[in-house]
Amino acid sequence: MSEEIPGYDYGDESLPEAPYDEEELERLQAAVMFDAEDEEALREAGEVLEPQIEEILDLWYDFVGANDHLVYYFTDGEGTPDEEYLDRVRARFGQWIRDTCDPPYDQEWLNYQYEIGLRHHREKKNRTDDADAVDHIHARYLIAFIYPISATIRDFLENGDHSEGMVNDMFHAWFKSVTLQVTLWTQPYFPEGDW
Amino acid sequence: MSEEIPGYDYGDESLPEAPYDEEELERLQAAVMFDAEDEEALREAGEVLEPQIEEILDLWYDFVGANDHLVYYFTDGEGTPDEEYLDRVRARFGQWIRDTCDPPYDQEWLNYQYEIGLRHHREKKNRTDDADAVDHIHARYLIAFIYPISATIRDFLENGDHSEGMVNDMFHAWFKSVTLQVTLWTQPYFPEGDW
Repeated sequence: MSEEIPGYDYGDESLPEAPYDEEELERLQAAVMFDAEDEEALREAGEVLEPQIEEILDLWYDFVGANDHLVYYFTDGEGTPDEEYLDRVRARFGQWIRDTCDPPYDQEWLNYQYEIGLRHHREKKNRTDDADAVDHIHARYLIAFIYPISATIRDFLENGDHSEGMVNDMFHAWFKSVTLQVTLWTQPYFPEGDW
Repeated sequence: MSEEIPGYDYGDESLPEAPYDEEELERLQAAVMFDAEDEEALREAGEVLEPQIEEILDLWYDFVGANDHLVYYFTDGEGTPDEEYLDRVRARFGQWIRDTCDPPYDQEWLNYQYEIGLRHHREKKNRTDDADAVDHIHARYLIAFIYPISATIRDFLENGDHSEGMVNDMFHAWFKSVTLQVTLWTQPYFPEGDW
């Protein structure tokens, strides 16, 4: 899969080691109440979501596109979006849904979360895609996105063969994982010791 | 109410003006999909939650207490919690539930969110309560807490007279507001221009 998706470097040995390890991951998982049952629910969710990935991305891209202050981060800052950048990110975003639903998470996964964080921050934004876009995604929108990316998945989870209880379990496992991941992505934004 | 709760300075003129204004609030509200219907749902939620505030705080405090790496922020760093600090924060946390359920939010509310953020950061932690505790709450746990503080409220919302649909609306309004507020609280942690 990774060779088909431009800039998708999960598992690539050239990636820098994340400044957080599996012990910190465990502590963060405890803080978001994430456990083995959530891992199971996420794997189930992956099967329900797989055939709907393009629809999910359509919904998320429509939401971003409908808000000038959000689509801004894909533009040159003067209203012109970089369409190739939008497309390349979209392919990785689809794969991100699969990866989110493929726990357990380990150090290799942490290293890629760190890379994702760097790609939102001025430290590495635009570089992977040679994009012509503003050089930094403000942290406030990264954190705020926990809501739409978590909440909008629920309707798609309903489209499987699962009971309402299982849909609920999958939704919460997803919500926990999104919160966990956004938390990890913000690390490069903070002064040493503050994150 | 404010005179009865130690350190509760919402509306106090001596508070510094937040570095974000109502226009930024509107943009963040759009990012978390927060609108007038959420305001209505939150006001309804406030009535359902009011008689349950102590139980909610018991649940949250038990959760923190069960995790050494979370209760840590109320300790001197060597295992001794500051009980008075825990009590004073608890009273404000109860009032925070009421304030969350009392939109619309305005500049005065934003100023207090900024103050809440400062009180988590080394810039102002411990000062309000003259606490004997570590001097900084790591941002990663502030962000991670979006999950437990959002998800655990749902059972309490069920304890009213509302339909499942309305419970759902109240839950989502609460989740949006928590995400919005945590986003605002993190501002003091970031280098200029990065938040």
